[in-house]
Amino acid sequence: MTAPLHEAHPTGSGRRLPDTQQGMRRRNLSRVMHTVSAEGPLSRAAVASHIGLTRAAVSTLVDELIRSGLLEELGPERPGRVGRPGSALAVSGHGPAGIGAEVGVDHLAVCAVDLRGAVRARAVRYGTNRGRAPEPVIEELTALVRRVIAEAEGEGLWPAGLAVAVPGLVARDARTVVRAPNLDWHDTDLGALLPGELPLTVGNEANFGGLAELWLGEATPRDFLHVSAEIGIGAAVLVDGRLLRGTRGFAGELGHVPVRPEGPECPCGGRGCLEQYAGEEAVLRAAGLEQGEDRVGLLAERAAQGDTKVRRALREAGTALGIALTGAVNLLDPETVVLGGALSGLAPWLLPSLERELARRTAGPACAVSVSRLGPEGPLLGAAHSVVRAVLDDPAVVSGRS
Amino acid sequence: MTAPLHEAHPTGSGRRLPDTQQGMRRRNLSRVMHTVSAEGPLSRAAVASHIGLTRAAVSTLVDELIRSGLLEELGPERPGRVGRPGSALAVSGHGPAGIGAEVGVDHLAVCAVDLRGAVRARAVRYGTNRGRAPEPVIEELTALVRRVIAEAEGEGLWPAGLAVAVPGLVARDARTVVRAPNLDWHDTDLGALLPGELPLTVGNEANFGGLAELWLGEATPRDFLHVSAEIGIGAAVLVDGRLLRGTRGFAGELGHVPVRPEGPECPCGGRGCLEQYAGEEAVLRAAGLEQGEDRVGLLAERAAQGDTKVRRALREAGTALGIALTGAVNLLDPETVVLGGALSGLAPWLLPSLERELARRTAGPACAVSVSRLGPEGPLLGAAHSVVRAVLDDPAVVSGRS
Repeated sequence: MTAPLHEAHPTGSGRRLPDTQQGMRRRNLSRVMHTVSAEGPLSRAAVASHIGLTRAAVSTLVDELIRSGLLEELGPERPGRVGRPGSALAVSGHGPAGIGAEVGVDHLAVCAVDLRGAVRARAVRYGTNRGRAPEPVIEELTALVRRVIAEAEGEGLWPAGLAVAVPGLVARDARTVVRAPNLDWHDTDLGALLPGELPLTVGNEANFGGLAELWLGEATPRDFLHVSAEIGIGAAVLVDGRLLRGTRGFAGELGHVPVRPEGPECPCGGRGCLEQYAGEEAVLRAAGLEQGEDRVGLLAERAAQGDTKVRRALREAGTALGIALTGAVNLLDPETVVLGGALSGLAPWLLPSLERELARRTAGPACAVSVSRLGPEGPLLGAAHSVVRAVLDDPAVVSGRS
Repeated sequence: MTAPLHEAHPTGSGRRLPDTQQGMRRRNLSRVMHTVSAEGPLSRAAVASHIGLTRAAVSTLVDELIRSGLLEELGPERPGRVGRPGSALAVSGHGPAGIGAEVGVDHLAVCAVDLRGAVRARAVRYGTNRGRAPEPVIEELTALVRRVIAEAEGEGLWPAGLAVAVPGLVARDARTVVRAPNLDWHDTDLGALLPGELPLTVGNEANFGGLAELWLGEATPRDFLHVSAEIGIGAAVLVDGRLLRGTRGFAGELGHVPVRPEGPECPCGGRGCLEQYAGEEAVLRAAGLEQGEDRVGLLAERAAQGDTKVRRALREAGTALGIALTGAVNLLDPETVVLGGALSGLAPWLLPSLERELARRTAGPACAVSVSRLGPEGPLLGAAHSVVRAVLDDPAVVSGRS
């Protein structure tokens, strides 16, 4: 009945609070928040019946959540009676906000999402970050973060944490970018470069994209493989609603699955990796197009115009994706594969060959493939929502703040 | 301090007991069992301090576990004072036993393992099962199961459950063999063919092999990929000590990861699957050997004698394994890859090319590869131990039995 608890988020996926009185109270605060978030507005009595606690117990929890600014009582028709049983509870639109940020190869973006899931402020800066040192990039990102926070504060929100999506491998400390080849960053501790006043989580953009799909996608199952692209190709493996992170935090490197073992050399050290066939540079090269801004838009435009070279390039990329995904589906047995990020905009030309390849390599029905509605927004939204989820999962961490 | 609770087992991996008084009691019974199992013999006071409960609370739990035949008090030096505080507790060697069974392509095997992890009875029948109907095979298996149970009962044990390892895909109902190509079984409900008096779990042999490695291997990490072979090639994906099962229960089909996308046709419907290069038939064919009994032994013998054709066949199989594992490691980021089953006996000739392939396709240090000590025993032991683990995870299910 209640929303699932302890969804994965990059900081502490699936962590369970301890079995103490205190842990129980914190779990119950979370159950109230998730219930109101998923089903609200609800009366206290309805919350109590949803989560199977007494109304008195729920009232104590609700009072604490109202004092902390996480819940609000609606009831404009009964001024002065706010707080009385009977008036409906809703998640606050004036409490904590999750700040999400994205370091893209060609842009920086920041947004603030409130506990209701609404984007309340955003800022973007276009321009390449390829080959730039981390310091000036993060300085610009910090300026955007401050601007978004100021705007959110103007609306009565306060920042509960900052999550940053990067196009690279992130260590399990959730601070250090171990390798971001398309930025040329190595072993970069973003924690040292970003403002220290907010709880910080740095994560891989494909992972945040996958979490966004889990949380915001339409009828997304709890077991799926989310494939996305910015410049490289990444994937997020979701197992029973949790992100599979891997020992070092590097799981989901679909871009380096060998597709043709004697194919072209890849900067990763391998040969014939998926990125050599379906990565942006490979597709642009095969399509006879130049690197430049909004390349995905250009590919889509040309494909829509019927450019045969572009269409063939995308068809071949789809075939390579289908081969790599056959391996992934055999290993992971997901319910669906979801194409997100830049790939979602090219889906009409990638999907037919991708699906054909999956089908011809599979005994029985092939794994379903769908296209994300979130498109390139996924990683940014996933980052912001990961902060919001962390508050819903353990409201006690921020209560007492306001 | 205490052993990890709720290890994955094929029936209900990671299931957590509910947050009720009753659920708490059952969790605490499990904590006592796991503590004594991992650290025993221990006094009641030591158990109490290990799990952080009062000595009185622990004594109540221990008394229940002794009554149920799951724990024993040691203390031969104090006859007549059994049950008094101070005497050491041990897991019973006369209580419940896990019955493991394996349907191999060339053999049937059954064993009984007590709560201490000791194999107390076993029975094997050699002879091919390829192409035989399920009914007579399961009839023979049932006869072996009955013989092993009778032997175990003669030693004061009683069967707590039966787990059966099969070389094929098993549905999530843990009864139905959806597809076992090397037996030629399809949609076979083993639950209807096996004796109904014991709780039954049917599982994939590679999965049971992976669990055996987790539970019984030497210093096995909690995140690893276990690769095994009987006739086909299977894998078990262990994530944080849990088996990744997949939506339909089919995860770990490493044998059908495409290695050379335009390679030979595979019965699965694909082309160039790993099994076409590293499966037993492919290796025997490449080595110029006939099918027959103990083919793995024959390959190992010839390779040890320096037969160049056999060595080349194994080297090429290792290369194909390395290519498929590069993809798997990129997707899953495990701590290690463990070669088990028949592959462990051929490791000296497979490993060099396998490791070379992994290393040359990986930026940074390649994933470590090790060889299981359990060898072809893994699936059978994993099956029996899965029953034992289920008892340790929820002793209340069997208490009251004796």
